[in-house]
Amino acid sequence: MRKVVVTGATGFLGRHVVEALATRGYEVHAVGRVGPQTADGIGCNVRRHAVDLFDAHSVDRLVADIRPEGLVHLAWTTTPGLYWTDPANESWTTASMRLFEAFSSHGGRHVVVAGTSAEYDWTSETTLKETTALVQPASMYGQSKNSLRLALEAWAPQAGVSWAWGRIFNIYGSFENPKRLIPKSILSLLAEQPLVFDDGLLVRDFLHVTDAAEAFALVYHHTYSGVVNVASGEGVTIRAVLMIIAGHLGRPELLTFDSNPARPGEPRHVVGSSRCLREAVNWSPRLTLRQGLAETCQWWTR
Amino acid sequence: MRKVVVTGATGFLGRHVVEALATRGYEVHAVGRVGPQTADGIGCNVRRHAVDLFDAHSVDRLVADIRPEGLVHLAWTTTPGLYWTDPANESWTTASMRLFEAFSSHGGRHVVVAGTSAEYDWTSETTLKETTALVQPASMYGQSKNSLRLALEAWAPQAGVSWAWGRIFNIYGSFENPKRLIPKSILSLLAEQPLVFDDGLLVRDFLHVTDAAEAFALVYHHTYSGVVNVASGEGVTIRAVLMIIAGHLGRPELLTFDSNPARPGEPRHVVGSSRCLREAVNWSPRLTLRQGLAETCQWWTR
Repeated sequence: MRKVVVTGATGFLGRHVVEALATRGYEVHAVGRVGPQTADGIGCNVRRHAVDLFDAHSVDRLVADIRPEGLVHLAWTTTPGLYWTDPANESWTTASMRLFEAFSSHGGRHVVVAGTSAEYDWTSETTLKETTALVQPASMYGQSKNSLRLALEAWAPQAGVSWAWGRIFNIYGSFENPKRLIPKSILSLLAEQPLVFDDGLLVRDFLHVTDAAEAFALVYHHTYSGVVNVASGEGVTIRAVLMIIAGHLGRPELLTFDSNPARPGEPRHVVGSSRCLREAVNWSPRLTLRQGLAETCQWWTR
Repeated sequence: MRKVVVTGATGFLGRHVVEALATRGYEVHAVGRVGPQTADGIGCNVRRHAVDLFDAHSVDRLVADIRPEGLVHLAWTTTPGLYWTDPANESWTTASMRLFEAFSSHGGRHVVVAGTSAEYDWTSETTLKETTALVQPASMYGQSKNSLRLALEAWAPQAGVSWAWGRIFNIYGSFENPKRLIPKSILSLLAEQPLVFDDGLLVRDFLHVTDAAEAFALVYHHTYSGVVNVASGEGVTIRAVLMIIAGHLGRPELLTFDSNPARPGEPRHVVGSSRCLREAVNWSPRLTLRQGLAETCQWWTR
């Protein structure tokens, strides 16, 4: 599985996955929509390709040229605020299956795909395990990812392709979209602007993007088959995350929580078990939450 | 470490720890305040003793007679609602150190003690790890347990005694005091009485008592040294726990949650990391939360 194509390679998670695979010695073909960039100091085993994954002809030419054994498929619609209901979700399901078929027809053997915690029933308020949690996506985003997984599961055996599906929870770190909660809060605090939140009591599972990338690299490296959470396994309130950030930035006085609960309909507790990830591919996170948030604050401060 | 004394042996956790140690072949001396009971089918390697641990003379005679190599000390004040502020907490710190000294003076070598999650700073709202979480007990109960740990830590090396300290989070299961949340709710639902709660959104870490007992037995068995959480590692809202119970009992319609938050001052998120327990003594829980709650409902239904 030496040659691997990574889609979404210029994205938040993708750039870190490219690095993690290249570090392990794979020949990484990094695919993004935008033109090839410089190698970012990753080394000579990364090649960049600009391909529109909705263009079937370009996709076919890409895999015909490279003939990769492996595919790590991370590309998807991810515009903050919009991706939950973006009609493009369904197009991504279709385009992804077309990509898998092209990959397989040119000799591809193992696929790793970015799934999402949004495939689970978020009303359970228990720690979500791959084997026991109910799959019941409430959003179009979750439904489209889940449709892709079902299609992949049905198609893969007859195509002779093995597959892994990494359900991502909350990831954070360098290069995250500045419209999202953690970068937005950091930038606001750095600008010395007061931040007023609701009660901040939703519980989430935050994982640093380099630890998430390492998880995908290990899942690929071990040719793991099946569904696996890419999660820290540890719940934390949004309030605690923001207080840690404000503490690191020396601006705790700018942060206020009122007594209003979060919007109704927001799930209260979305935490994934990380047991399977730890046991199946021997993953463990490099950074604690405090360390990861400190690194992230430093990155935005520079 | 064949001969072991277990205090609090007639209590909720203690009776299960006695069973777990006896099953492993230890000669278990089960100490409770009340008179010796029948062997409960545990087998011939359990002997029962009625001893008042506040009576220094009886304690000394007990350990002089048995000369145990090991001690699992679980006895403490645990009256529901009262134990947080019970002045007896401080007497238990003193009586426990006296017990350790008597144990050591008659050849005792390894002590395992029941600590509590209440030793931690509960306002952190992160998953609590032994190595990184702040120890800052807010209650008299937590403070007294923590004082005992500090005293034990200072005393043990010079006495040549090794020690482990298991910080217990929420445990539940058969024989739990019926005044506590889970049994009370089960009994109320079995009586077909409507239950109205606050919003139920506090997040806690629930572990079945047999899995907690197995943890203590393994910590003893491996002569583990130091602090270790006895926790599931998995957060769950109180609301979800009660809904699972009402589902098992077929009475979901009797359960209502209003929009009032829990009492102010109640910690929002108390979840312990179980990593150390899993890695240090190779523990893993036998029951999922759903299985454990189903067993508990069955036990109360009989």
